[in-house]
Amino acid sequence: MTLVERLVLGDRLALARILTQVENDTPDGRQALSLLYSRTGHAHLIGVTGAPGTGKSSLVNRLAMYFRGQNARVAIAAVDPSSPFTGGAVLGDRVRMKDLAGDDGVFIRSMASRGALGGLARATAAIVQIFDAAGYDIVFIETVGAGQGEVDIARLAHTTLVVEAPGLGDDIQAIKAGILEIADILVVNKADRPGAENTEKALRSVLEIASTRITAGRHHGRMMPTAAAAAASDGVWITPIQRTVSLDGQGIPELASKISEHRTYLQHSGRWRDREHARVSGQVEDILQQSLLHQFHSALPKRRYNEIMQQVFDKHLSPPEAVDLLINAAAQTEGADMALRATLPKASRSRRPK
Amino acid sequence: MTLVERLVLGDRLALARILTQVENDTPDGRQALSLLYSRTGHAHLIGVTGAPGTGKSSLVNRLAMYFRGQNARVAIAAVDPSSPFTGGAVLGDRVRMKDLAGDDGVFIRSMASRGALGGLARATAAIVQIFDAAGYDIVFIETVGAGQGEVDIARLAHTTLVVEAPGLGDDIQAIKAGILEIADILVVNKADRPGAENTEKALRSVLEIASTRITAGRHHGRMMPTAAAAAASDGVWITPIQRTVSLDGQGIPELASKISEHRTYLQHSGRWRDREHARVSGQVEDILQQSLLHQFHSALPKRRYNEIMQQVFDKHLSPPEAVDLLINAAAQTEGADMALRATLPKASRSRRPK
Repeated sequence: MTLVERLVLGDRLALARILTQVENDTPDGRQALSLLYSRTGHAHLIGVTGAPGTGKSSLVNRLAMYFRGQNARVAIAAVDPSSPFTGGAVLGDRVRMKDLAGDDGVFIRSMASRGALGGLARATAAIVQIFDAAGYDIVFIETVGAGQGEVDIARLAHTTLVVEAPGLGDDIQAIKAGILEIADILVVNKADRPGAENTEKALRSVLEIASTRITAGRHHGRMMPTAAAAAASDGVWITPIQRTVSLDGQGIPELASKISEHRTYLQHSGRWRDREHARVSGQVEDILQQSLLHQFHSALPKRRYNEIMQQVFDKHLSPPEAVDLLINAAAQTEGADMALRATLPKASRSRRPK
Repeated sequence: MTLVERLVLGDRLALARILTQVENDTPDGRQALSLLYSRTGHAHLIGVTGAPGTGKSSLVNRLAMYFRGQNARVAIAAVDPSSPFTGGAVLGDRVRMKDLAGDDGVFIRSMASRGALGGLARATAAIVQIFDAAGYDIVFIETVGAGQGEVDIARLAHTTLVVEAPGLGDDIQAIKAGILEIADILVVNKADRPGAENTEKALRSVLEIASTRITAGRHHGRMMPTAAAAAASDGVWITPIQRTVSLDGQGIPELASKISEHRTYLQHSGRWRDREHARVSGQVEDILQQSLLHQFHSALPKRRYNEIMQQVFDKHLSPPEAVDLLINAAAQTEGADMALRATLPKASRSRRPK
């Protein structure tokens, strides 16, 4: 039996091996992605992001346990774009194990950055797809920091949680304002600490500024939960704020039900499909870009490439002028053969050209 | 007189306008970059990164004033990848103005992210090039956060400062370990605060772990300044740690001389040229990628593209299968004409295809 067949039957070891292949972007991994693609589109992808120190990991743990209690199968992709060289993400695994170890309905995968950020977003998208195909109902995408890179990764999700906590520094406020705009649900975690009220107030005022700017005249501000739920089923989503204490589980059921409400909203409003399409389109564009670049480099002899680059180093050519020359050179080398090259067999294509 | 001619003569207004064109990636901006490229390669590019709350902006201010005192012309590119939608970076401008306003030898430019991170790194690279061509001796590239995105931007620099401060949260430690590996100089800012000694110790131990891992047997640990300087001129760079208090300027002259030592080291060891070449190569690859993608989309009718994407949305095709089909379709539509398309006139090329 192939690994893919074993994965489909629920074999965790096969899943782990395919995840590694996919993360390393091996030919086997690419083939698995291709074979499993038709099984995707069912999982609810939940992005969790926020500044360091807000307790995202414990929060995801708690939510995972809660959804397990409702019989959902849960996967967690913990992504650490900030520390390309350390095992920070791996540590997260071990901490979690206490709570979730031995539960066959939970699968946790940690990924650290390996160089370029684009590569990590791509690998995360692929891993999430494998979880989806493997039948996990809920997939958390948890990022470590709160930078633009994390935002890009969180954007893979259907529902994005932005987590805050009382008592973080002033500079954090600046980050917050940007990241708020991608939040579907705001969480004030560690809400038992002093200052939780102020954190919530600050979030609410930033939310109001944002919503005033975006939809002039739209009703905003504090809404009753039932009113918010009604608005959601009407096709309007008003970003709610939920307080939680992930240490003892306070607010977790309420947060989980807001997550479910958001899913309902997405499905009823057609935005579930929109987000799926946007994600898949991005993936196709990404592979396309890598393929075109690979084709180009196959067509142009390395020697000619280096000659042109030397002229750039020597300041005889500017970068855009060099690109014109490079493309001309590739076209002349291969001429009409470019069309032939377009039909290169799959096996010889690589998504990671040098 | 053209804007580019005026810039070369030192006209600040022309510089500001070209920076805007370049940041917006307009045809005029691309032309300016091309025309000015031969004038680049002289500025010392200094990246400054580190977690929020470490006081990077004040530190850059102090360093800028110090180098001004040595008659260097100084430019600052303040990059805020974390808050795509807010004016955080602009605020930085106003705070700085108090210290540096009215000084013709200083130019400050703030940039906030506008969507994709790649776009921001590209815009930063371009802006730094314009500063270089405009005759600024020192160009600071200051980033707001400490994520991978910031690391990518800091990598544009010849010399990278990683700034820490006492009393930041525990999660920060995880970030630190990753970012340390790109540090040419470590700065413990706010060194008048309690805990500065511990922060320095923590940095030193992480440095030692890193250097043990990288070069087994290489001498490391605390070195006397003169010994470090001697090592630098021998072609070995041992990451120094410098304490500063940017509020009152303590440690700034020492930090500035470490920066100058690093420049000497880069030039003597040949790494200055290596870093220049790596940066320029990345830039060429980037423009190349955009051009190839643009060519592809010009060759393939939108209707055919959408048909294939619909099959992906319907799960009849996986993304890699779709890319094969798309490339075939483009090749068939245009056939040998691909070669012709390779010579598209510059004006019709865009680095930002839809």
